[in-house]
Amino acid sequence: MEQQVRVHNLGVTEDGYGAGVGQSLEQPFGHLDPGTLFSWIFPTAHWVGRSTPGGSRGLDDRFSREFTRNIGAEIMGRNKFGPQRGPWQDEDWQGWWGDEPPFHTPVFVLTHHPRPSFALSDTTFHFRDGSPAEVLAEAKAAADGQDVRIGGGVATIREFLDANLIDELHVAVSPITAGNGERLWERPEELTDRFHLERVPSPSGVTHLLFWRR
Amino acid sequence: MEQQVRVHNLGVTEDGYGAGVGQSLEQPFGHLDPGTLFSWIFPTAHWVGRSTPGGSRGLDDRFSREFTRNIGAEIMGRNKFGPQRGPWQDEDWQGWWGDEPPFHTPVFVLTHHPRPSFALSDTTFHFRDGSPAEVLAEAKAAADGQDVRIGGGVATIREFLDANLIDELHVAVSPITAGNGERLWERPEELTDRFHLERVPSPSGVTHLLFWRR
Repeated sequence: MEQQVRVHNLGVTEDGYGAGVGQSLEQPFGHLDPGTLFSWIFPTAHWVGRSTPGGSRGLDDRFSREFTRNIGAEIMGRNKFGPQRGPWQDEDWQGWWGDEPPFHTPVFVLTHHPRPSFALSDTTFHFRDGSPAEVLAEAKAAADGQDVRIGGGVATIREFLDANLIDELHVAVSPITAGNGERLWERPEELTDRFHLERVPSPSGVTHLLFWRR
Repeated sequence: MEQQVRVHNLGVTEDGYGAGVGQSLEQPFGHLDPGTLFSWIFPTAHWVGRSTPGGSRGLDDRFSREFTRNIGAEIMGRNKFGPQRGPWQDEDWQGWWGDEPPFHTPVFVLTHHPRPSFALSDTTFHFRDGSPAEVLAEAKAAADGQDVRIGGGVATIREFLDANLIDELHVAVSPITAGNGERLWERPEELTDRFHLERVPSPSGVTHLLFWRR
């Protein structure tokens, strides 16, 4: 099967926001509470942050599992990597995820302010100031036949959508509103000229939206 | 994560049958038409029998994908392996799947009539006359840390359920009835003393039932 470019477990509000305003070290999602936005994923057996055995294996977990299945590289925006903006004041910051990041593959961070690559356990972070298509070409090569995950945040996913580089997109819509912040869409139907769309309501209260290329 | 014992994409009728009566070389599922029982899976992008690009990537495909994710071995019944019953008349029969079986792992075939192991491409078939627990122990070792799939048919899955060896079970219920044949259950609720159950209706018309240990 041809290499796919995939988005998984992207959490947005009913009004289409994936992050609030005022993102900071203390509030990575701004005024939006990630505990609410991602409440569906924490109980699942395959949540990558899970540190104890057990967890649910129902519908939500089927989506949670996809995060790692056949993924060989991730591309993320600089705002997902950290709360800093502009030139690096120092290079001490190594991401939010501690010594054992949940990626286990090469990760390409899009930024106008490159810095040297470094590795934490089996994740290697590279910093690239290139177009989505250029960085995707490098990530595909690094993924060695496996798929590439576009990890977010919302601005990065918009860039890749606008460049028509996404093959498959999974968005979990939580029954909350944000009012302002970083917006993925006004309505999911904005994408249906290019993508099939299926809506799957979950017992947890989120609605999973599945998009794939027409 | 601990090794799991998983069942995926098991097709049954509304009245709980996974195969009809009169299984033969010409009718592997007896009077039940597998084209109807598995109509939901053939259009999916990740159906293991797919030979052309494309395919759907909606809800049904999310279940289809699980067939290969993190699987290191399969256990199947002899009636899944072939239409013969009783002692082998010869050992020419090498399964239904041609030179490139869709398993790509060791496969343990439960039979009272052992024969030598053989390999087809990257699938190796072993024949074992042991209890479910004994054969599972061997399959777990062969899976090298990955999970073990119990591949069916219905009688084999019943044996493993009765021995309480299944961790997770996915059944796709088609809106047809069979009347007689090989029956998985009278009602899915028979399993809810030991398993959580979620029902997920699909646009294709099947209802996916997800069971996992309480």
